[in-house]
Amino acid sequence: MTYCVGLRLNSGLIFMSDTRTNAGVDNISTFRKMQCWSVPGERVITIMTAGNLATTQAVISLLDERTKAHGERSPSILEQPSMFQVASLVGDTLREVIGEHADEGQRADAAFNATMIVGGQVGDGEPRLFLIYPEGNFIEASDDTPFFQIGETKYGRPILVRAFDPDMSFADAVKLLMVSFDSTIKANLSVGLPLDFQVYNANSLKPGKINRIESDDMYFQTISAGWGDALKLAFDSLPEFKLQPE
Amino acid sequence: MTYCVGLRLNSGLIFMSDTRTNAGVDNISTFRKMQCWSVPGERVITIMTAGNLATTQAVISLLDERTKAHGERSPSILEQPSMFQVASLVGDTLREVIGEHADEGQRADAAFNATMIVGGQVGDGEPRLFLIYPEGNFIEASDDTPFFQIGETKYGRPILVRAFDPDMSFADAVKLLMVSFDSTIKANLSVGLPLDFQVYNANSLKPGKINRIESDDMYFQTISAGWGDALKLAFDSLPEFKLQPE
Repeated sequence: MTYCVGLRLNSGLIFMSDTRTNAGVDNISTFRKMQCWSVPGERVITIMTAGNLATTQAVISLLDERTKAHGERSPSILEQPSMFQVASLVGDTLREVIGEHADEGQRADAAFNATMIVGGQVGDGEPRLFLIYPEGNFIEASDDTPFFQIGETKYGRPILVRAFDPDMSFADAVKLLMVSFDSTIKANLSVGLPLDFQVYNANSLKPGKINRIESDDMYFQTISAGWGDALKLAFDSLPEFKLQPE
Repeated sequence: MTYCVGLRLNSGLIFMSDTRTNAGVDNISTFRKMQCWSVPGERVITIMTAGNLATTQAVISLLDERTKAHGERSPSILEQPSMFQVASLVGDTLREVIGEHADEGQRADAAFNATMIVGGQVGDGEPRLFLIYPEGNFIEASDDTPFFQIGETKYGRPILVRAFDPDMSFADAVKLLMVSFDSTIKANLSVGLPLDFQVYNANSLKPGKINRIESDDMYFQTISAGWGDALKLAFDSLPEFKLQPE
């Protein structure tokens, strides 16, 4: 499993992903699930991946190769005229890769599946955020649904739904994501530290650094420990229930 | 889908279940998923069910019939000498019903599956709480794992993990369950109001009333609205994240 979240804020985009991959609970590894391509001043594109690791690595490698070798190996995501076209190209590549493996050998289509979050900005366009399905089609974040989650989405969703605000600062958004990831990590062994996160400032057309939060990160530990106490206080602050005498 | 939780407190047991059943999002109904049998002064047994409705209704009807007609239709859960034997009988009945339908017609075993929470007290025994699997085997709640959830368990789990305390009062436990159910209802259309809950006082050997929380319940509405604000305050109370300048 995996957990990745992309938020669309008024001031830009923010991405967070875990790094655990597993083939059974006795076979876990650490892989980066966040990739960024950029042409400073022109475009920034970040992709996060969930699902079959062979599929997601093949898609990322194909996309990356095509940004380097020109000519016949195009089209490249660095040459698409808009984020919509970038999402479309990522979707096509994902469908291709899944199709190649699903059509031969074992007929285990589901096992090769993957979903992706693609966000970024191209030229004069707005910063945009997309969720790409294994079928290659995709949806875009809107004012009504300003964030996407992929992988193990359920444990960390209630706090996002309640506390997310598109006007929040990047620092608050990172804090919110840490709470959401902490709830997920506490409940699902297949989501694990370290975490990667990246902040993209709207209209900067300059990629934010991909930061890594290791398991000994003091701030993450403070959030993880403090959130339990904060939740208990929040719970205590709600009015008492009055049991009817029987 | 469904959501049911059984908590084992030091002062007794508490059960809560939703009432929505669905065969597709365009075909929803309301069914009680909580049943209670008792012989006052001798035993109290409560069962909550999740999964295929035909299966769970058949199991409940069989168990109920066997408590009424004696002789060849036994064994009855009202005659078992301990909660362990009650859980064992419920498990056997569940496996039987699933087996009957899975072995003929469509080979869609999974579609007939169901899980159950069984709790109660028999005679001198302690109050006990069990989770019954479709295979008929079961596990018991312990000090390490003092509650069970069935159905759509993920959204409502983080608050249970963080705020549950076996020393809490029945009133606080009902409040906690309402928060957990509210988070689930907000995220999954297939879990819905009204909710049923029952409190069992340890060693009373007297069944608590099954109370119903309708969608216009004032207290539930207060919790539902108040929890969002309380969560935001809890979130604000955590220390600020400091973004590194790039």
